[in-house]
Amino acid sequence: MFYIMEQKQTINFGAGPAKLPQSVLLQAQKEFLSYSGMGISVLEMSHRSADFNKILTKTESLLRELLTIPDNYKVLFLQGGGSGQFSAVPLNLIGLKEDTCADYLVTGTWSEKAAKEAENTAKSTLSTRSWTVTRVKIPDPSSWTLNPSASYVYYCCNETVHGVEYNFTPETNGVTLVSDMSSNFLSRPVDVSKFGLIFAGAQKNVGCAGVTVVIVREDLLGHALNDCPIVLDYKVQADMNSLYNTPPCFSIYIMGLVLEWIKNNGGSAAMEALNKQKSSMIYDIINASNGFYECPVDETCRSRMNVPFHIGSKEGDEGLEKEFLAGASKRGMISLKGHRSVGGIRASLYNAVTLEDAEALGTYMKVFMKEH
Amino acid sequence: MFYIMEQKQTINFGAGPAKLPQSVLLQAQKEFLSYSGMGISVLEMSHRSADFNKILTKTESLLRELLTIPDNYKVLFLQGGGSGQFSAVPLNLIGLKEDTCADYLVTGTWSEKAAKEAENTAKSTLSTRSWTVTRVKIPDPSSWTLNPSASYVYYCCNETVHGVEYNFTPETNGVTLVSDMSSNFLSRPVDVSKFGLIFAGAQKNVGCAGVTVVIVREDLLGHALNDCPIVLDYKVQADMNSLYNTPPCFSIYIMGLVLEWIKNNGGSAAMEALNKQKSSMIYDIINASNGFYECPVDETCRSRMNVPFHIGSKEGDEGLEKEFLAGASKRGMISLKGHRSVGGIRASLYNAVTLEDAEALGTYMKVFMKEH
Repeated sequence: MFYIMEQKQTINFGAGPAKLPQSVLLQAQKEFLSYSGMGISVLEMSHRSADFNKILTKTESLLRELLTIPDNYKVLFLQGGGSGQFSAVPLNLIGLKEDTCADYLVTGTWSEKAAKEAENTAKSTLSTRSWTVTRVKIPDPSSWTLNPSASYVYYCCNETVHGVEYNFTPETNGVTLVSDMSSNFLSRPVDVSKFGLIFAGAQKNVGCAGVTVVIVREDLLGHALNDCPIVLDYKVQADMNSLYNTPPCFSIYIMGLVLEWIKNNGGSAAMEALNKQKSSMIYDIINASNGFYECPVDETCRSRMNVPFHIGSKEGDEGLEKEFLAGASKRGMISLKGHRSVGGIRASLYNAVTLEDAEALGTYMKVFMKEH
Repeated sequence: MFYIMEQKQTINFGAGPAKLPQSVLLQAQKEFLSYSGMGISVLEMSHRSADFNKILTKTESLLRELLTIPDNYKVLFLQGGGSGQFSAVPLNLIGLKEDTCADYLVTGTWSEKAAKEAENTAKSTLSTRSWTVTRVKIPDPSSWTLNPSASYVYYCCNETVHGVEYNFTPETNGVTLVSDMSSNFLSRPVDVSKFGLIFAGAQKNVGCAGVTVVIVREDLLGHALNDCPIVLDYKVQADMNSLYNTPPCFSIYIMGLVLEWIKNNGGSAAMEALNKQKSSMIYDIINASNGFYECPVDETCRSRMNVPFHIGSKEGDEGLEKEFLAGASKRGMISLKGHRSVGGIRASLYNAVTLEDAEALGTYMKVFMKEH
């Protein structure tokens, strides 16, 4: 049987689920009906089969290789997204120390949600010490007051909604460090050994929706609260190699293909260089626009992943922004609308967004400015 | 671009993830790179886009139509599998009544796990009244002693491991009825109005792994315990139309295609007739084998979905069973091995398994018996 592949010039700047590498899609399509000559689809494969185990093992090894994950860390593939981890982190880690409290660095929507959920889920034992900082700047660490008896310090490494990214790893003086890296995972190298736990939804830089990676140091396992739902218990999942129950098989498979693509394209260091180049190009246009484009984020912590900006004024001219989005859409550029809570424009420049894609946006921004 | 689709004669009797209709796989493959002419894959689509909303809405409407779901029920598409629901059910429903206890009808592995998790998760308030019955027979309802002040009565409608299926709906005299229908969902019509809540993982009869359907009566929402993890809170998910956080988009899309296939093939009544025919054929061969094939389940509650049997004796002759599996594999029949906890053979005959598939198995069983 033969058929023609539909093609259309669409450039996807979505914040997640987001663009995937074309070669990954082509490979998945090719083997969609019969994986590795088996006569069945990955969608139909038993999660306890030797064949699926190969996919799972390959995906984990690639991740370990790309992030140089030390041997004393477990890699888990879970369901429930980042929001599921907002509960799982306190349920598993709040009991690490007697005081059962945690420090949350609140620098945007996602860390705020995580702090709120920590207070709620592990309510009886948790006294969250969250501090709200201005959303457009990460305060200088010298001004932080961290609690040395906290079970852990939590932060969101890249705030997808507000476009705020940490370009440094917080110093916690020995307190376990936990990071939500959902939207900048594998967009740059990370020294995993500095963290107790890292988690990330796949649907930004490393795959599609449905699977969340957790990288957790082994000595942190086994401290879950007694009433922790079993699917959120890291130790249960670690002991069963993420197969306590049926995992999101297809999403894991897609992640494996994306990780292979990252490896073949130079790994996390090459991704960092590319992401720097793409985002600098857009920020440079914003900076040189004499206020026509306005990015609300301080230059010290502008995200390389999500570039939020307004048009016409600091708060944004609604008419101009609508026109900008309509024009973009005509040029095949989609999903540029800012998050509904902040408005404006947001260009997400994850790993699979090419330099040419970013250039097309840059060119359009210049043309649009000239015309207005 | 053209390419040839690989094909191989494989008959998949897996217990889940399981066989999908060939036409579903073909359609998903065809539109894998560009859904509905958009130029992007379903994998890349924003879950908040109008296009994904169409997929979500279509999937829900088909489900409502196929099961005649009354208007006062919500349909949710969640992550975490059946095991996630083992926690979610008590966390959401145990508080329905003052006594905060529940009755669990334990008739196999899955209801036993659910009962255990209910005791664990909602520990502080739950006194589970589970009763263990013989695994190969559902005791006559006249012998049951249900607690009228229970918040709910829970049962597993089809025990995938043991091959035990309810062919009746338990009478609870007004107490809310909750059912795990993971492995016989949409394999036959169901009177939803008799239930407070039905849940089902998709990877048996209605799709692939990664999404779990919950059908819940509206008046049961809003009773979750305070520390219920937010992704497990039915009210939060119902209020957000399953979009509290990023849902497993691709798994929902595949479910939509499978539901369409069920509709085009006559709906749940036609599925029931087909499933009856397939399973009767295999049970008839077992019954007529003079003990060569032994099914441990009482004839009153034999599952139409999962047919477990031993070969050679009641406990099974290990050598014969190995030989049977090897011969099946040579004929392209895979995933016939019984669950690791019970051994033997298990043929799963879900909706997508065709009559011809079942006949191929039946023919092989007869040949194998003749030869031994």
